[in-house]
Formats: sequence, C-alpha cells, structure tokens
Amino acid sequence: MFLGSEIFSGHPKGQSLKHLEHIALWNDVGQKGQTVSLKLNHGSDFILGVTLSILSNSSLSVALENSELQEMWRLHYVCSRDLITARGQDIYYGIGCSSTWQTLTRDLLIDVQKGVLLQEKKRKIKLVKSKFKVTHIHLYGSGSIDNLTLSTSDHMAQFYATAEWLVNHQDPKTGGWPNPVRRRITAGIGDLKPGWYSAMGQGHAISVLSRAYYHSGGNVTYLNTALRALKVFKLPIYKGGVQSKFLDKFPWYEEYPTTPAVFILNGFIYSLFGLYDLVTLSPRSKQKEALSLYDQGITSLKRMLNMYDTGSGSSYDLRHISLGIAPKIARCDYHATHVNQLLLLATIEKDKIISDTGQRWAGYIQGKRASHN
Amino acid sequence: MFLGSEIFSGHPKGQSLKHLEHIALWNDVGQKGQTVSLKLNHGSDFILGVTLSILSNSSLSVALENSELQEMWRLHYVCSRDLITARGQDIYYGIGCSSTWQTLTRDLLIDVQKGVLLQEKKRKIKLVKSKFKVTHIHLYGSGSIDNLTLSTSDHMAQFYATAEWLVNHQDPKTGGWPNPVRRRITAGIGDLKPGWYSAMGQGHAISVLSRAYYHSGGNVTYLNTALRALKVFKLPIYKGGVQSKFLDKFPWYEEYPTTPAVFILNGFIYSLFGLYDLVTLSPRSKQKEALSLYDQGITSLKRMLNMYDTGSGSSYDLRHISLGIAPKIARCDYHATHVNQLLLLATIEKDKIISDTGQRWAGYIQGKRASHN
Repeated sequence: MFLGSEIFSGHPKGQSLKHLEHIALWNDVGQKGQTVSLKLNHGSDFILGVTLSILSNSSLSVALENSELQEMWRLHYVCSRDLITARGQDIYYGIGCSSTWQTLTRDLLIDVQKGVLLQEKKRKIKLVKSKFKVTHIHLYGSGSIDNLTLSTSDHMAQFYATAEWLVNHQDPKTGGWPNPVRRRITAGIGDLKPGWYSAMGQGHAISVLSRAYYHSGGNVTYLNTALRALKVFKLPIYKGGVQSKFLDKFPWYEEYPTTPAVFILNGFIYSLFGLYDLVTLSPRSKQKEALSLYDQGITSLKRMLNMYDTGSGSSYDLRHISLGIAPKIARCDYHATHVNQLLLLATIEKDKIISDTGQRWAGYIQGKRASHN
Repeated sequence: MFLGSEIFSGHPKGQSLKHLEHIALWNDVGQKGQTVSLKLNHGSDFILGVTLSILSNSSLSVALENSELQEMWRLHYVCSRDLITARGQDIYYGIGCSSTWQTLTRDLLIDVQKGVLLQEKKRKIKLVKSKFKVTHIHLYGSGSIDNLTLSTSDHMAQFYATAEWLVNHQDPKTGGWPNPVRRRITAGIGDLKPGWYSAMGQGHAISVLSRAYYHSGGNVTYLNTALRALKVFKLPIYKGGVQSKFLDKFPWYEEYPTTPAVFILNGFIYSLFGLYDLVTLSPRSKQKEALSLYDQGITSLKRMLNMYDTGSGSSYDLRHISLGIAPKIARCDYHATHVNQLLLLATIEKDKIISDTGQRWAGYIQGKRASHN
C-alpha cells in the first residue's frame, strides 16, 4: 500500500505541508493547532517503509488500535539517540537527527511489542495481526518525507538495513559487535559485563554479511566487514574473544564467553553456519581463515557431540562437566533446534556421527529411548 | 552342626570305615555293596565344611532334596582337575587329587545353582533355603575325612579360601588373574579373547588380599600378592593391561579392556576401592605405588564423573563418546550402585563433586530431575 504524501491532510489552522515533486516537506514548529496527519483505517500491512529526514523535536508517529483490548498504541520515531523508551502506550524510537535522507523499515507490531516488554516484562501481548489496525500517521515538528508505504512484508529492505547496521556498528579494532547488556548465565560464574562478544552473534552477523555480499553482486564492504568479524573467533575468552577449549583440547566458540566456559551447543552450531556461509560465498582467495575456523569447529563438534546425549534427549550445554554441577537439559524446542541443526549440518558434512546423532535425537522426540544395560 | 565321622553308617556287606582318633579313613574300593553314608534330614545349614584327602576315583557326595519341586540334587566333590561338570541332577566339582589334607568350604545351594545354570542358562531356580534339605552324605572310593560340619555361614573360611586361591592362581609374570572366557561388549568392538584382565577383578582381588593381610596379623604372602597385582593397573590396554586414557588425557582402569575403551563407571570405582584398601592396610613403606594409582584414578573420576549424568539418571559407560553410538543407560540397580559407590567414596574423599553428584543421583532415584532451560 503506497501512501502518497499528497494525501496527508493539511489542517486550515496553521501547519504547512509543501509538495516538491514527490517529496513532502512539513513544518508545524511555532504554529498553533493540529499537526500534519493522515487518518487511516488499515489492517493486515504492518511493515512501515519511509524515506525521511527530521530535525530536532520532530517525529513521525504511527497510531495503532488493538480492537480486542480497546487500546491505542502510539509509536514515535523521533530525532534522538535513545534506542527505545516508553511511557504507557507511547513508545519512542530514536532514529537519530539528520538533515540527510534516511530509510526506515519498521515492523510496527514488533515495535509495539518491544514497548510493552520494556515496561511490563511479564505481560504477554498476543500480536494477532487481525486485531490491529493503523489509525493515524502524524508528522510533528519539521522534516522531509518520501516513499511512505505500508506492506505485508519487506524482507529485502530489512535484510539490507541489518547488513548496513552491521557495517556501521562493527568495532573496527576487534571486528566484533559488542553486547551492551549485563548477562547472568548461572550461579558460580561471574556475570558477563556489557561489551562482551557472542560467537553466535558474530556467526549470525557473518551469515547476513556474506549473503549481502553475494546478493548485492559483490559489494566488498559487506565481505570485508564479515572477514574482520573472524578476529573474535580466534581470540580466547581471556583476551576478550569467544574461543574456549574443552579440556584444553577441543576449540569451541562460545555463545556466552564465560569463565569457566559452558559449551552451549546450539550457539556453537549457529556460529559454524556463519563460518560456512562465509567460506561458501567469499572468493577463493579470501576463504582460508574462515575455512580453518570452520574445520577446527567441526572437528570439535564430532568429538564432543555425543557428550550432549542423555539417552532420551540432549543437554543444553556442558556446564555439568565444566562446573561440576547438575546438567541443564535442553527443553523440547531447544532439543528440536539441535535436531534441525544436525540434520542441516549432515547435508553439508557427510559424516556418520553427525547424521546418526541427528537421526537418533529425532527419535527421542518421538519417544524413542537409548537402551539400558 | 558338627557331623562326627563316627556316625557314618558302615554297612555290613563290605565297606570299611576306620576311626583314628577323630579322623575317619574309608575304603570301599573293590568291595561290593553300599557305600559309606550318613543319612540326614537337615535344613537351614548349607555351608559344608570338611577336611579331607581323597584318591583317584573317589568322592565326597552330598544329596539335597528340593521339597517344592520334588527334585534330588547330588553334589560330587571328586578327585579331578575339571572345575565343574554336570549331567542332569548330578553335579561334579573337581577338587584335585591329593594324599595330603585339604579344607573344603562349600555353599551347597550355590553349588546346586551353578550346576543348573551350566546346563540350562534360562532356567531360574529359586534357591529358597526353606525348600531344601540335606538328605545324605556319601563317601565313595577311599580317603580320609575329618571335621565335617554343616553351618548357616562360615564367612571367614570362605574368605581365606578365596585369598588362598588368589595367592595360588596369580600369574607371577603379570601379577594378574586372567579371565578364561570370551567376552563380547558391543557391536563395533572386537570380543575380548580368553586371558584378558579386568581392573575390577584385580581390584576385588587386591581388596580381599589386603584384608587377609590385615586380618591374619600380617601374613606377607597376602600383601606381596596384592602388591604384584598392581602391575596390571599400570599397563596400558595395548600392552595387555587395563589402563586406558580418556581423550588421551585422563587415566582410567577398565572393567573390560576393550579397544576403543568404553569407561564403565561402576567397575572403575570398584577398582579404586581395591587400591584404597591396599593403601590403607599396607605398611607405609609399601603404599607408594597403590597410592599413586589411586590418586590418579580419583583425579580422573572427579573430572569425568559428570559426563555420566543424564539429568534423570546415569549412563553405564561412555561408549557414546568413545564409539560415537547411542549411550548405554545404567538400569535402575546399576544407577543405585553408582549412588552407593559415590556416597561411600564421599566418606573417604572429602570432595564436593563426589558428594554433590552422589546426592543428586540419589535424588534421581526418588524422581527428581535436572532442570531444563
């Protein structure tokens, strides 16, 4: 659904909205009266796309109604550097201030959900699309706007927005995307302090960037960003990286770089997928480093995989071995993740341990059990 | 119950029974007629003790009746080197031929059971003591007999008979007691061929010998036999010993010395108990070797113990890791054995991993489960 800027309603009492070819400029600063707004009654399409430039104290705001709960939610994309803040049903996303154009691609329902969770962790709202509709789009302050759309999906825009974000937010020194949150894994291990790297996060980033390099027809910015991201894989945890060694023997890439390490299985395999994507999609001359990291990871996986087998499921990690405490069993959906990861990996690596274990673990889902003596 | 030899019935038709102080000499060779025999109607005491000397073609035979099944069993202790043979309800135990005295201590019901199992592996006879009674003791051929008794138990005689057997049957070169049977562990590993050593068997032997040394007030034959038995612990499996290494890192004493090794837990801990007994009961100057083997075993145990934790029980071994196959779960009574071994070990080793794991595994028996994520 294309929302031409010409259909914004200019209110007679003061605000201005100028058309400049397809671009609309607006300004209600210093004016009394209502803002520039577009009234809608639109459901089913909740991916907002817009090219805009806004100045300080300005925003693009979207109002959504939940017909079931009789609630109104207001999403404000504002000129600010705060990632997200919320007060009641007003949720603010900082998109930075700039007099140059920027492209926003937002999933409005996800943006509502983040605002709810920010305030009430325990409240689960069901994001049933059919219960929502967009009722208004408002323009506050002053700025320029173009190409305003609501769509059912816009995966490519989201994909490239992600790739661009990764390019722009990589730490140039470490090659990593630091996690800004404190994270507690379990008693007996110190919390991870803001700034830590995740092998799984790095792997996902490398996947996105490798695919962006491929899909863009060879934009080397994506490739170089992905290659720089390998550095964190090679660094041991005590030097700020993500690599541990099981029993000082098998290198492992940690989803959470704790000391002692806990060897989370799914995060490790996801990180291998990232390495695999880079090996597969990068030019031959650039493959060496990723290939070496992938190969040593696969070797560790083959040797360690069955340590996760409980005979009726899988364990989530090896904390019971490295910390000497009770094991953490993979709940049903994590076990299913393990199975899917292994069955996928078995299509890449023609290896009996990986395929046999994937099959056996799939059997556990159906109630099969390992034999006893 | 003392069965004085004087109450054996001499039959008028030929057989002879001479009294020589308390010793009775008998001879019915070349005689026609009935054998020297003692008629009984005796239940509850089934440990036979006797000092005797028999010549070729001679035997001491005991007849037992099972009142429930209306069966008669005849145990023949004969002048032969065959360990055990059976034909129907006649069971033959070779006790060797000797003109010098030897002491027999036999559990008659166990001897019946062995005879049954030898012929019908699948038949399980319930050895309910109250259903059995001894009805006759016969003397065939010629020999000397003294101190014939039936008792409820005679543990000390059995204990020393075992210790003597171990002294007399140790391979002087290897220090081991070889197992004469072929043993299949699982598909994918070659069978163990007769002549293999078991760390668990060596450990049990060392336990018995150490305790015999202590209880006998310092008979060094027992001590020296136990010390010689350590040799097998130090030898790697590929050199005919019982020691494997998990991931080339942690020494382990194998109940079954297979290649690849499978790291059976209960057999390993039993072997540690043997080493512990020898350390504790031998003179300080002789402790060093056993102590070193015990210490390195305990270190391995602490590092590897939690690899056996399935979150709801324990695995019997680590075949899933070393062979890359499905795990072998410890059935209920083996899991209980693990728990008992750990709780006992926790009284020796003040170690948190051992005691915590013992407690947690005890909880699994009561239905407790490890948490999932």
